[in-house]
Amino acid sequence: MIFWKTFFQNSAVNESYEKNFKKLFLLDKTCDKIELKDVYISNTKNINLYELEQLCDSVGWVKRPLKKVKIALKNSSIIISLIQKNDSDTRLVGFARATSDNGFNATIWDVVIHPDFQGLGLGKVVMHQLIQQLRQAEISTITLFAEPDVISFYRKLGFIRDPDGVKGMFWYPR
Amino acid sequence: MIFWKTFFQNSAVNESYEKNFKKLFLLDKTCDKIELKDVYISNTKNINLYELEQLCDSVGWVKRPLKKVKIALKNSSIIISLIQKNDSDTRLVGFARATSDNGFNATIWDVVIHPDFQGLGLGKVVMHQLIQQLRQAEISTITLFAEPDVISFYRKLGFIRDPDGVKGMFWYPR
Repeated sequence: MIFWKTFFQNSAVNESYEKNFKKLFLLDKTCDKIELKDVYISNTKNINLYELEQLCDSVGWVKRPLKKVKIALKNSSIIISLIQKNDSDTRLVGFARATSDNGFNATIWDVVIHPDFQGLGLGKVVMHQLIQQLRQAEISTITLFAEPDVISFYRKLGFIRDPDGVKGMFWYPR
Repeated sequence: MIFWKTFFQNSAVNESYEKNFKKLFLLDKTCDKIELKDVYISNTKNINLYELEQLCDSVGWVKRPLKKVKIALKNSSIIISLIQKNDSDTRLVGFARATSDNGFNATIWDVVIHPDFQGLGLGKVVMHQLIQQLRQAEISTITLFAEPDVISFYRKLGFIRDPDGVKGMFWYPR
């Protein structure tokens, strides 16, 4: 079994990265750390809107007005992002956010991992981090709306579908 | 068929009520206005926490710490309340709120009508007002989680259950 773990990044990276970003390592069976692709996890709300648009494009999501995306990010309680960073470049490769009343309830939106980084368990890393932060904020009910193809992914993370017959419902403008 | 309509309240009520509260009238078939029980609708965020607790008690909801309720109200995007007011007293008789990113998505929580006022269509009034305000804010996806006994109520208001197989999922602390 392999699993991801976050560590505070080492001193090789610059100051601004030290504050908000943690380097991701993969641990193998022997708990030897394997640094993979220089991926960092962050809870900064300072997201580059164009990079987010590119990331969403990469998984085929419908384009959204950046002005509204900016407002939505500003009004999200928690944002988790994954950044690939090397000497010359940075790139947003994973993202998720949650709205919340910061008291009882939260709803998770826009969970996305770049296709080049899928299958590495990074979706779980992002979700674990989101859940951990919501639990730290003493949020008792964490909700989301899952497309059919990702229901089993969320179930493995402990999410329950339609508990006690409670149904997710949507109202769309007509 | 009867239906509710809001009007700006008349001059018989005091100044502070004029600003945030609208009087509710029932219209009969002939469109004659029938003022019922002096009920006002408001979008003020200034909710009396003890009155809200009493209202939630009246429908048998589990008690919640007022400190957390206060935070949750503060971080709700929209709050709709129904107040019964007469010369000597005011009383919270209906309530609903929504969290939102103010860009794309909203989730409705805590829809409650006091038992003495149920069956009058006030639940619809509160929901219509909430939807109207979310639409004014250009929110395109309005969501909620419905207990089995109120799914048909929300369906009549235009909410769709599990659209395209999208499922509501919950994560609870263990």
